[in-house]
Amino acid sequence: MVIIMKENATEENIRNVCEYVRKFNLSTHVVNGAERSIIGVIGNVEVLEDKPISSMEGVYDVVRISSPYKLVSRSAKPDNTVVRVKDVDIGGNFVMMAGPCAVESYEQMIEAAKAVKKSGAKVLRGGAYKPRSSPYSFQGLEEEGLKILNAVGRETGMVTITEIVSSSHIDKVSQYADILQVGSRNMQNFELLKEIGKSNMPVLLKRGLSSTIEEWLNAAEYIMKEGNPNVILCERGIRTFETYTRNTLDLNAVAAVKNLSHLPVIVDPSHGTGRRDLIAPLSRAAVAVGADGLIIEVHPHPDMALSDGAQSLTPEEFDKVSKEVNKILLALKD
Amino acid sequence: MVIIMKENATEENIRNVCEYVRKFNLSTHVVNGAERSIIGVIGNVEVLEDKPISSMEGVYDVVRISSPYKLVSRSAKPDNTVVRVKDVDIGGNFVMMAGPCAVESYEQMIEAAKAVKKSGAKVLRGGAYKPRSSPYSFQGLEEEGLKILNAVGRETGMVTITEIVSSSHIDKVSQYADILQVGSRNMQNFELLKEIGKSNMPVLLKRGLSSTIEEWLNAAEYIMKEGNPNVILCERGIRTFETYTRNTLDLNAVAAVKNLSHLPVIVDPSHGTGRRDLIAPLSRAAVAVGADGLIIEVHPHPDMALSDGAQSLTPEEFDKVSKEVNKILLALKD
Amino acid sequence: MVIIMKENATEENIRNVCEYVRKFNLSTHVVNGAERSIIGVIGNVEVLEDKPISSMEGVYDVVRISSPYKLVSRSAKPDNTVVRVKDVDIGGNFVMMAGPCAVESYEQMIEAAKAVKKSGAKVLRGGAYKPRSSPYSFQGLEEEGLKILNAVGRETGMVTITEIVSSSHIDKVSQYADILQVGSRNMQNFELLKEIGKSNMPVLLKRGLSSTIEEWLNAAEYIMKEGNPNVILCERGIRTFETYTRNTLDLNAVAAVKNLSHLPVIVDPSHGTGRRDLIAPLSRAAVAVGADGLIIEVHPHPDMALSDGAQSLTPEEFDKVSKEVNKILLALKD
Amino acid sequence: MVIIMKENATEENIRNVCEYVRKFNLSTHVVNGAERSIIGVIGNVEVLEDKPISSMEGVYDVVRISSPYKLVSRSAKPDNTVVRVKDVDIGGNFVMMAGPCAVESYEQMIEAAKAVKKSGAKVLRGGAYKPRSSPYSFQGLEEEGLKILNAVGRETGMVTITEIVSSSHIDKVSQYADILQVGSRNMQNFELLKEIGKSNMPVLLKRGLSSTIEEWLNAAEYIMKEGNPNVILCERGIRTFETYTRNTLDLNAVAAVKNLSHLPVIVDPSHGTGRRDLIAPLSRAAVAVGADGLIIEVHPHPDMALSDGAQSLTPEEFDKVSKEVNKILLALKD
Repeated sequence: MVIIMKENATEENIRNVCEYVRKFNLSTHVVNGAERSIIGVIGNVEVLEDKPISSMEGVYDVVRISSPYKLVSRSAKPDNTVVRVKDVDIGGNFVMMAGPCAVESYEQMIEAAKAVKKSGAKVLRGGAYKPRSSPYSFQGLEEEGLKILNAVGRETGMVTITEIVSSSHIDKVSQYADILQVGSRNMQNFELLKEIGKSNMPVLLKRGLSSTIEEWLNAAEYIMKEGNPNVILCERGIRTFETYTRNTLDLNAVAAVKNLSHLPVIVDPSHGTGRRDLIAPLSRAAVAVGADGLIIEVHPHPDMALSDGAQSLTPEEFDKVSKEVNKILLALKD
Repeated sequence: MVIIMKENATEENIRNVCEYVRKFNLSTHVVNGAERSIIGVIGNVEVLEDKPISSMEGVYDVVRISSPYKLVSRSAKPDNTVVRVKDVDIGGNFVMMAGPCAVESYEQMIEAAKAVKKSGAKVLRGGAYKPRSSPYSFQGLEEEGLKILNAVGRETGMVTITEIVSSSHIDKVSQYADILQVGSRNMQNFELLKEIGKSNMPVLLKRGLSSTIEEWLNAAEYIMKEGNPNVILCERGIRTFETYTRNTLDLNAVAAVKNLSHLPVIVDPSHGTGRRDLIAPLSRAAVAVGADGLIIEVHPHPDMALSDGAQSLTPEEFDKVSKEVNKILLALKD
Repeated sequence: MVIIMKENATEENIRNVCEYVRKFNLSTHVVNGAERSIIGVIGNVEVLEDKPISSMEGVYDVVRISSPYKLVSRSAKPDNTVVRVKDVDIGGNFVMMAGPCAVESYEQMIEAAKAVKKSGAKVLRGGAYKPRSSPYSFQGLEEEGLKILNAVGRETGMVTITEIVSSSHIDKVSQYADILQVGSRNMQNFELLKEIGKSNMPVLLKRGLSSTIEEWLNAAEYIMKEGNPNVILCERGIRTFETYTRNTLDLNAVAAVKNLSHLPVIVDPSHGTGRRDLIAPLSRAAVAVGADGLIIEVHPHPDMALSDGAQSLTPEEFDKVSKEVNKILLALKD
Repeated sequence: MVIIMKENATEENIRNVCEYVRKFNLSTHVVNGAERSIIGVIGNVEVLEDKPISSMEGVYDVVRISSPYKLVSRSAKPDNTVVRVKDVDIGGNFVMMAGPCAVESYEQMIEAAKAVKKSGAKVLRGGAYKPRSSPYSFQGLEEEGLKILNAVGRETGMVTITEIVSSSHIDKVSQYADILQVGSRNMQNFELLKEIGKSNMPVLLKRGLSSTIEEWLNAAEYIMKEGNPNVILCERGIRTFETYTRNTLDLNAVAAVKNLSHLPVIVDPSHGTGRRDLIAPLSRAAVAVGADGLIIEVHPHPDMALSDGAQSLTPEEFDKVSKEVNKILLALKD
C-alpha cells in the first residue's frame, strides 16, 4: 500500500500516519519528494482495508497495490480451469449453450433441445425462476419448469443450466439442473454466493449490469472462498449511455479476464445486444476474442415466446451462427 | 401501446400484426403516414409485455405508453404517503437518520446515538450484516450487532434502521430493528422484496447503483404488490464515469420521483459522494431539492471506523450539517 | 510519481526502470515490500507524462500523484476568483443568468430580457450559433442574432453571453457579446480554447457531456495558460444511463470544484435536467450546494420556441425560481 | 410522429395540440385508448423538431419515428460505400491502417512505415496535431510532422491519414495527407464537419467518447450534407464506468452501424482498450464482427514513444495481429 501525503502535509502528519499504521504490525518507508512525501506500507496490508487512512490529516490519497481477490487470480493458478459437468468440459473445448429464455412447456423445451443439440449445443438453458423488472411480468413456471428442464435434459443427454434466485432454492434446483446460473441482478447477492460456495455445484456467474471487472472477480472469490472451485464466468453486456442496444457487450472484459483469472469465460450475446440481428456478428466476435463458449437464447417460435422473444434466435438462425463460430475456431487453431 | 411499422412494411405485415394483437382481446387502430404506418393498440396491453412484437416482420419499434408500476404511482394516490414508525413520521416532517456504517460495539453505538440525537436525528442507523465487495473485508457483527442496535435504540428512544441481506433474516431482523434497509446491491433481489412485501415492516429501499428511476419504482411496486405499503425510497448515488467521487448523487431523480410517486424519498449523501468534505454541501442541496430526509454516516471516531471511515462525519460535523439543513427548511417554509 | 512493480518483477526489471527514469534527471527511491517493490520518483515528473513506463517489463502500474492543472488550482490561488464583467461580479454575489436558448427576433429578446431583469437576472443569454445534433435542426440566426442580443443588452443595461463555436468567430462575437460561452461539445476543442486564451474575454466553460472533473479543469487550464484569467465554469449535467432526464446534473462536481479550484462555478439546470418541471427544485439545490450562479433558459412563449422549448421556463416561472433562490441565499448568509 | 397524451388530458388539450400541429401543414389522427389518447402526426414532421410539443398541456411524451439522418442511411443507399483513396479501397477489401500515435521524426516514421507495410498495412497513420487533455502534454510537431508523414508516405507508396483539429487547417493538412481524421473530441465540432464537408477529402470520423450511434451518424450526415460522400466511420471505444480498460470498445455499435448505414466502419482497438495486451484479441473480434478495417498504433520502440506508448504495438506484435486477422478473414470468406 502506498500513502500519498498532501503537498502541505507537516512532519507531524507524516509521523501520525506512520504511527497509526505501525499499530497493525506493518512497517513504513517514507520517501520525501520535492512536492510531497509518500509512505510505502509493507506487510499484511489487508488489515487496513477498512481503516480511514485517507481521511487522516495530511493524507492526499491511498493506493492499494494488490488485487483483493486471490483464489480466482491467474497468479494463484497459472493454468486454465476446466469445469467438468458430466461429459462436458467447460474451459476446455469451446462450448455452445442454448435454449429458450424461459421454460414454457415440455413441447417447447424438447423441440428447442433437439434443434440446438443437432447444431452442436451441449448445454441446454431454460429459466424456471425469472427475475423481472416488473412484478406484473411472467415470473416463470418455478418447480414445474425445473422438472421439464430435467426431463428434457435426460431425454436428450444434454447438460442443463438454470437460474437460481434465492439461497433457499439451492437444494431444489441442484436436484434438477446440472449448472446453477447466478443472474446479473444477483451478482452481489453475497448471501446467495456464499451458500452456493458451500455446495459443490458448477455455477455460471453473470457479470452485474454495472459491475467492474474487479467486482466481478471478487464475487467469484466469494464462491471459491467457501470451497467451490467450479466457477464459470459469463459476460452479458454492461449498462452504458447507449440505448440502441439493450446493453453494451464488453468484449474487452472477456480478454482482460482471460489474463487476470484462470476461470472459463462464456459470452451471452443475446442479453449483450438485445437484438436478434446483432447476435450472429457478436457471437463471431466472442469466439475470436477468446471466449470459452457462448450462451444463446433460442426459441422454436420466437414470436410466441413468453419472454425475450425479440432477442431469441430461431433454430435455423442458431444453426447458422454455430457454423460460423466453428469456422473461426478452426481458423484460429491452425 | 403504439406499434411503429418500418417504412417498407407491406399491407400484409400490418394485417399480421393487427391479427396477432387482436388474439389477446385488444383492439387496433391503424394510422397510415406518408412514410410509414403506426398501429395504436387499445385495451389491457400488459398481456403483450412479453410478446415479441418488435421482432415481427415489418415492425420498426414498439412504444409502451403506460408506466408498468401502479401502486407506487402518484396518479394512483395523489397525496404524499407518510410512513409512521413509532413516533416518527417519515414523509411528513423532514427526518434526520444518522449513525455509524457498521455496529462495532455498544460503546461506539451509544456514543454515536446520543450525539446524533442531540443534533436532531430521530432515526439511528447501524449495519449488522455488511455486504462488501471483497469477501476478505469486515462483514459485520451479525446478530450480536442487531442486539446492540436494539439496546441503544431503546435506551435513547430512537427508531432504528439496519440492512437486511437475505429473506431468511426477516424475522430475526424485524425483532430487533424498526426499519429494514434494502441496500443497492439487493434492489433487484426480487425474492427478498417479495418476502418483505409479505411483512408489514417499514422498509427503506435504496436505488441500485445503475438502476433507472423506472426500475427503482418497479422494485418498490414488488413490495407494495404483496401488501406492504410502508415503503421509503432512498437515493444514494449512481455509478457513472466520474471517479473523483465514489458515486454521482442524482438529485434530478429525487425531484422526479417526488412527482412520479407518493412515497417519501430520503437522500444518502455519504454514499452519494463518498467524501467527507462533500457531505455538508450535498446535504443542503438534498433538502433544497425537496427530499423528505437525510441518512448520514456519523462515527464518534471516524479514524477508528471498521468501515466507510473516509465518508463518516464526526458528531461535531453532523451537528453543523443539521443546523444548516434547518436553516434551509425554515427558509423554504415561509 | 509512484511506480508499482509486479509481484514477479526481477531485480533487473527494477534496475532498468530506475535507470530509464534517471535519464530524465529524476531521482528514484525503491521500497521493497513483502509482495512487491515500489519506486518513488522525485523531481519534475511531468517529463514522464508521455513515457510508456507502464509497459516496461515488470511494471504493474504507475500512479501520478500531482494534478496536471496548475493555474486553475486552489492551491495556486487560495482566494476565490471574481470575474468582473461591466458592473457584474461573477464569483462574488450570486448571479442569475437567463434568456432564451436561441435568439429568434428582437421582439422575443426584448420581452425576455425585460422580464428576467425584473426578476433579478443580471446576465442575458441567447444563442446565435446553435450546435445541433442534426444538421436539419435550426442552426441559429448567426450574426443577425448577435446584433439583436447586443442591442437588447444595451437597451436593458444587461451583460450578455452567447455561445462561440469556432475560433474564427472570436473577433466577431467579442464585438457583440460580453461573455463567450464554450458549449459542452467544444469543451475539448483545444484550438478554440487556446485562441480564447489569447484574448482577454470573460468565458463560461461548460463541462463536457462525459468529461471528468479533472478534464474539465484541464480545459480551463488551456485557457488560463494562454494568459486569460477570466474563466467561469459551468456544470450542465453529464451523460449517464438514466433516460428519464436529459442529463444527470452533477452537483457533487460543483461542490468538488469549489474545493479544487478558485474559479466561479455556475449551474445550468435547464440542460442539466431537460425538463421544465425539474428546474425549480434543482435551482434551489444548486444554490444550496454553493454554486456562484444559475443560467436558466427562459422564453416569453416556450411553446413557440425554436429550440429547447420543453426545458424553457416562462417569465412567471422564472420569477418564482428567483424568489426561492433568494430565500435560500438569505438563510445561508445568517 | 406520435404524440402520447396524459391519462388525465382533456378533450381541449387534445384539440389544442391538433390545432397547433396543423398550423405546420401536417395532418393528425387521434386514437382514443382506454387509458389515454394518442395523436398520429402525418407529413413533413421535421418542422416540429424544435417545437415544444412535449411541454404543451396534457402531453405525456412525443415519439419521433423517423431517423434524423438521411444521406448516411442504408435505406437511402442499400449498397456499401467504397471510399477510394489512391489505390486503396476502403469499404471493399479489409484494410489495415497502422503507425505511431504521433509523428516524432523522419527516422521513426520510415522505420514504422516499412515495418507495417511489410505486414500488410496499406494506410500509414501519424499525428501531427495532438489534442491532449493537459496543455502541458506533448502537442505534436505540427506542420513539420505533416511534412515527414507526407515524405514517408510517398517514399513507401502508402496512403496517409492524420488528425485535423481546426477548420483553419483543412487546406494545409489536405496538401500533405490523403485522409483527414476527425478525433472523438471533435466529433460534434460542427463547424469543422461542415468545412470538411465542403471539401472532397476522404475523412475518417471517430465516434465521440459518449456519443450515441444516432449522434455519430448525424455527425456523418453533417459532412455528407455539404457534398462530401467520402466518409469513413471509426469506432474507438466509449466511456463507461469500467476503469481497467481506457475505454470500452463497442463492437455492438459496429454491427449495428453496418446495418443502419452504407458507410465503411473501421475499428481502433488501441484507443478502444488502451492496453497493449488486449489489442490482439480485440483486433480478431473486430474482424469477426464485420468491420471493414483496423487502425492500430504501432511504434518501432514503444518505450521511447512520446505519446500512447502503453498502447502501442511493436512491429513484431503487429505482424502477429495481421496474420491472425487474415486467418479469420479467410475463414469467413468460405
